Amino acid sequence: MFKAIITPRFSDTDALGHINNTNAPIWFEGARDPIFRLFMPDLSIQEWQLIIAKMDVSYHGQLFYGQDIEVRTFISRIGGASFDVYQELWQHGEKCVSGTAAMVHFDYQTQKSQKIPDDIKAELTQHLYE
Amino acid sequence: MFKAIITPRFSDTDALGHINNTNAPIWFEGARDPIFRLFMPDLSIQEWQLIIAKMDVSYHGQLFYGQDIEVRTFISRIGGASFDVYQELWQHGEKCVSGTAAMVHFDYQTQKSQKIPDDIKAELTQHLYE
Amino acid sequence: MFKAIITPRFSDTDALGHINNTNAPIWFEGARDPIFRLFMPDLSIQEWQLIIAKMDVSYHGQLFYGQDIEVRTFISRIGGASFDVYQELWQHGEKCVSGTAAMVHFDYQTQKSQKIPDDIKAELTQHLYE
Amino acid sequence: MFKAIITPRFSDTDALGHINNTNAPIWFEGARDPIFRLFMPDLSIQEWQLIIAKMDVSYHGQLFYGQDIEVRTFISRIGGASFDVYQELWQHGEKCVSGTAAMVHFDYQTQKSQKIPDDIKAELTQHLYE
Repeated sequence: MFKAIITPRFSDTDALGHINNTNAPIWFEGARDPIFRLFMPDLSIQEWQLIIAKMDVSYHGQLFYGQDIEVRTFISRIGGASFDVYQELWQHGEKCVSGTAAMVHFDYQTQKSQKIPDDIKAELTQHLYE
Repeated sequence: MFKAIITPRFSDTDALGHINNTNAPIWFEGARDPIFRLFMPDLSIQEWQLIIAKMDVSYHGQLFYGQDIEVRTFISRIGGASFDVYQELWQHGEKCVSGTAAMVHFDYQTQKSQKIPDDIKAELTQHLYE
Repeated sequence: MFKAIITPRFSDTDALGHINNTNAPIWFEGARDPIFRLFMPDLSIQEWQLIIAKMDVSYHGQLFYGQDIEVRTFISRIGGASFDVYQELWQHGEKCVSGTAAMVHFDYQTQKSQKIPDDIKAELTQHLYE
Repeated sequence: MFKAIITPRFSDTDALGHINNTNAPIWFEGARDPIFRLFMPDLSIQEWQLIIAKMDVSYHGQLFYGQDIEVRTFISRIGGASFDVYQELWQHGEKCVSGTAAMVHFDYQTQKSQKIPDDIKAELTQHLYE
């Protein structure tokens, strides 16, 4: 599991007084950085080789401004050329949001998916959600 | 079906040169305004009575800066206290992104879901995806 | 003058119930597209030749969700290699926000500013704020 | 001075490969939290009493994805009912962006500015930019 802390900003709130739901996908993408680094250690754009195929987000409870949020990031599936990242947002002792992003190992030159190398698979395996 | 046009902004792009995937949930929420108006005709915050329970987004093709995007919004399920909104982003003649948001008719005072009134159900029915 | 219409989104509001101030620079950049097109007619990233040097924004009145906003875009200064774009946001009959962005004609290869061609200067002149 | 660290996200980049300029006002507002707390210790929305009157941002150098950014926040002016917050973004050993926000001590009930209490003035003074 990877952990990251987010301090929500005033601009992340909406008129209902809570954190707006559209922040979750942004925060989840940000918290996938350590996974991006398994493929591109320097996060080099020139060597970028991941693309998102789909995502889902479930909202279990409200998030508030003024308290830090913990993002927990796991691998929940490893396929031949793709894998799933499962993530949670925790605040005030509750899991408030969870979601999964399906990522594809992608060659931007040929615009085709490509096999995940075995050494990266091994690293992904270390972060499997149980 | 409801249609809306989005002119993507330079700030919506990312370093890969396309529109970043995190814009889709933002644009989809924006394009749900006509559905919000079925419940709150003036979009009055004080009378707000909808909450999002979950969403999923599928990415079929890349979106580009410099060309307008059409958002198509349908109702794909009507339950007792909740309903699904199915939406698509079209650009350069292709359906590039699609997704569904599960919305709940919600009483923010009691923090409980509530039955969708019959007259609103009838209106939602007119926008059903076939 | 260039005009554009923005329909503010629910996610653009903040907990005080109005449109958050950080949207103005985003909307202003979006509404500079017609000026970007004077330099890059197809908004081609590969040919991009503008960079922002500074901006200022003044907040005169509150912007609300549920009503369209008109963006008015003018040229307020034309120099040798740079120019100023002055912009306003109008809603409910009032000028609610105004601001100026100083743009530099820039060569990303050499990382240096470059003279604005005379034909583009002539076009910019047609949109001068009086 | 207040310090905060920002880890820029992939979604903060734009098609030119750098961090988009519109992030600076968002990050600056986020980093004003410790100053907001001088007025509203719990960041309570119900007791909110600050409003932004204007801001300016100067771009000195490019910010990149993949490296942390340090935000430095100072008070640069203290008036009767308003004050200025001067802020800088530092990355790769350089001051890349700087800017000033003019904040007004504001009563949202009466919609009028109000005198800054002496004890808060004393606290603001401790963070004056020299």
